[in-house]
Order: sequence, then C-alpha cells, then structure tokens
Amino acid sequence: MVTHKPTAVCFSGLDPSGGAGLLRDLSTLYDHPLHVMAVLTSETVQSSDECFEIKSPACAPATTFSKLAPILPGTWGAKLGLLAISADELSRLMGELAHLPPRYLIWDPILNPSQGVGLHSNGSLLDMAKQIGSARRSDCDWVISPNWIEFKALTSATDSMEPKDLINASRSIFNLGFSCLWLKGGHGMGESIRDYWITNNDCVAIATHERNPVKPRGTGCFLSSSWLAYRLQGLNGLESARQATDDLQKLWSTSDVLPGGTRPILGLR
Amino acid sequence: MVTHKPTAVCFSGLDPSGGAGLLRDLSTLYDHPLHVMAVLTSETVQSSDECFEIKSPACAPATTFSKLAPILPGTWGAKLGLLAISADELSRLMGELAHLPPRYLIWDPILNPSQGVGLHSNGSLLDMAKQIGSARRSDCDWVISPNWIEFKALTSATDSMEPKDLINASRSIFNLGFSCLWLKGGHGMGESIRDYWITNNDCVAIATHERNPVKPRGTGCFLSSSWLAYRLQGLNGLESARQATDDLQKLWSTSDVLPGGTRPILGLR
Repeated sequence: MVTHKPTAVCFSGLDPSGGAGLLRDLSTLYDHPLHVMAVLTSETVQSSDECFEIKSPACAPATTFSKLAPILPGTWGAKLGLLAISADELSRLMGELAHLPPRYLIWDPILNPSQGVGLHSNGSLLDMAKQIGSARRSDCDWVISPNWIEFKALTSATDSMEPKDLINASRSIFNLGFSCLWLKGGHGMGESIRDYWITNNDCVAIATHERNPVKPRGTGCFLSSSWLAYRLQGLNGLESARQATDDLQKLWSTSDVLPGGTRPILGLR
Repeated sequence: MVTHKPTAVCFSGLDPSGGAGLLRDLSTLYDHPLHVMAVLTSETVQSSDECFEIKSPACAPATTFSKLAPILPGTWGAKLGLLAISADELSRLMGELAHLPPRYLIWDPILNPSQGVGLHSNGSLLDMAKQIGSARRSDCDWVISPNWIEFKALTSATDSMEPKDLINASRSIFNLGFSCLWLKGGHGMGESIRDYWITNNDCVAIATHERNPVKPRGTGCFLSSSWLAYRLQGLNGLESARQATDDLQKLWSTSDVLPGGTRPILGLR
C-alpha cells in the first residue's frame, strides 16, 4: 500500500538536550497522523541552560532535500527553524523548494539562542526573510512566526504599538512574500502576554495569558510544529494557531527542570 | 520541580526520510514516559530507497555529550546506532561515557545501509565493538543487537549453527565486554525467522515469525529503542527484548511505501 499521509518536513537545528529544535518538533509532530521527515539546518552543542556551539550541518540542506522531493506526497508542509547556513546555501535550498513548493510553510525566525553563542544580526535575519518570502507561490500559505524580539529586528515596530500599528509594521514582511505573521509574546495589558495573528488587513488577538516569571524552553518549536500539523490536517491558518496555542497551555504545567539545570523545559504531552 | 524521569540518549545517525535512524528512535521513545536526548553520530543523504551519502557529524559527539552529562539523571541509558566517526573520536566519546556510564546501553551495529554507499568493513566494525565493550563497568548492562550479517562479521558464526553453537560463537563478543547478545533475523525452520537472546550460558529463542518477502525499514531502530525504553522502566533484558518484539509485530501491518518509493517503511504506532 502506498501512503499519502500528509508529510511534515522539519528544516531544523538539533538541540541535543531535547528541549527545543528538531527533538521538540518531532515530539510535537508525532502526536499527529503525519509522516515526518527532517533536513538538518544546524548542529549545536548545548545543555538545557546554554548554547555553546552552533555549526552548519555536515550535509548541505539543498542536497538532502533534493533526495526527499521524489518521495513527498502532494500535500506536504515545511517548518523552518534555526538556519545556520550561508546565504548561498539558503538560496540553493529555496531553489530546490521552488520545484515543489510546500503548500504550507511556517518559519520561526531565530536571531540567537536565548542563552549562549550568537547566530544572526538583524540584517542577516532580514536577508533570510527576503530569500524565503520571495520563493512563495501565490497558492501557498507561508507564515512567519516571530517572537517580539525578532519582530522588532525585522520591522520598524516598537514596544508600545497598538494592533492597527502592528498591521502597518507588518506590511514590510508581507511585501517580502509571507501570507501571514504570527506575533508571539506581544505585550498585553499589565502582566499579560498577547499573541496576534496579523494579515494585510487584520490583527486578531489569538490568546492572552499571564506572563510567567520563567518561560520554559521549547514553546516556539512546539507552536510552529503544532500549527503545521493542524494546517496539514485541514484547519485554516488562524484556527491552526489557536489550536496550537490551546495545546501549549495544556502542556505548560508539565514543564520540568532537568537535574543539574536551572531553566525549565516544556514537558511531553 | 526537578524531573528525574529516566532519560534515553540516542547516539544515532540522521535518516532524513524518517524511516530509520534518529527519527525512528525518537518516534519509538516518545511513546514512553522518558526524557530523550540525542547526540548525532552521522548525517546522511537518503531517500526511503537508497542512501547516497554518509558524513561525520559537524559537532564532535564527545564534545556534545560532555555538555549533556551534567543534566543527566541517575538513571539513564544509551542507544548507539550508525557510528560514522573515527576510531579516535569513538575513543574520546567512550572516555566521556566512562565518567558517567549508562546503566543500560544497546548497540545496533550497522555494517552498511541496506541499500547504497558503504560504511564499515568487518575489521573496523570489530574494532568499534572492542572500544565500546571494553568501556562497560561490571554493574552496567550493555547489549549488542546485531542482525545475522553483522553477527557473522563480528564472530566466527556460520549460517547453519544450532543454539548451543551460537553461544560459543558469541563468547568472543562477551569477552569484549558486552553482557548479552540479541541476535535478530537468525534462521529458524523453513520460512520462519528466529531471534535469539544469548548470554554466556544460555540461548533463548524470543520470537519466531514468518519471513516476509520485503522487510520494512526501521525495524532495527525500533527494536533497540524499544528495548532501551522498557529496560529504563524496570523490565529485565530478556523481558524488554520480548516486549519490544511484540510491539514490532503489532506495528508491522502499518508498513507503507512512500509515494515515489519502492521499499516499505514501518509505520508509526
């Protein structure tokens, strides 16, 4: 029997501690009826507290993907995470994707690991956004899901912006080619955090939750992978973001600190 | 809250197609109440049918592991898969493991991917067995789980051997330091396949099943990862092998061929 299960391809970095990156993506995606593939876009050395090294993968992502393309079903989606690859290599990868573009794509742009060695400057992250966005075909839904810090790095947004200003600030991102922007960790009133789903003409608050003193690692990977899973199963973009956010809230209480570590990581299911 | 969940560390190669390697290990381990970490021991380029490239990981496994050791709980285990690393690097890795040896370890020795580029000679695989086995501490249970082809590469075994001869043939492996040998795909009567659990003085048939015309990819990774999961949850070695084998039989019927591929891969759950 030939399977035509929707397929999610993770273009992810490997966090050996299992808190974030590819392992978090997989633990999330394996809860859904999908086939999952993975193209490594960075290797790292890290504990659960700190990132010590970030390296480009040994196998070029464009080459790796070129051998997966022939075994992809018609419905497939991509999750892009930590991209420790050169502009040239990203260009080759987007060239391969152009032959068989994912119907759904979500990019969780990461400037730097939250603790440890650096990766991108604002300028190099914006260059990546240009390369990725410009490869979208009009019948495809490609979403960028920055945290507030990456949102400010990529746009002219400032901390105090109201929803209608957020739409204006996001226009430069839509002009690069992305269909929607999912802003995570935006500031709500007082001690709350607000996530927004932003399109060319709308800005919807999809969730408001209390600001926790410590944020467990892995929430960003969980949200973008969950979004892709629901999108591949037929929910629309906003519904997928809402469902992923609900799932995260349920998982939040499972957060644990590993022995010898200090930062909590999100639990599993 | 600090978690003391048993932790499984995969020392695995990455098969991007998701059929085997790290992705198969993770899809198996995430079905159990464990924390999972991963140290990459090779990157590969492959479809579901063929392996085109095998490379050493960008980050040295010994370095990667040295940053995980401080966050491991008292009870942890290791699964070793495709090791595309030099003898020197393996020596450094086993040196790191000697500081905090896994109570349980299972090594699925792989001579070569079943289709595509080569990796080890019989001699280099035996050298690895020496390096790994000699690092075991006497209070640790370290198992090697070869298929028939690797068993013959590592010992003087021949196809026609009876159980008592298999014990004798395995002695050279026990002398290297391994506590048990799990021989997979041994020949039973006629069209059946027999798996054996071999110790210094016993050889138990743990399962007999029909020889399928096509063997789905991923069964070896599934068995060794399942074994580790059950062992970490308190079953003994033989019980863990039996339980893993039962689980595999249930999963066998979920095997699928990916569109554009010809070889079936084991399904998920």
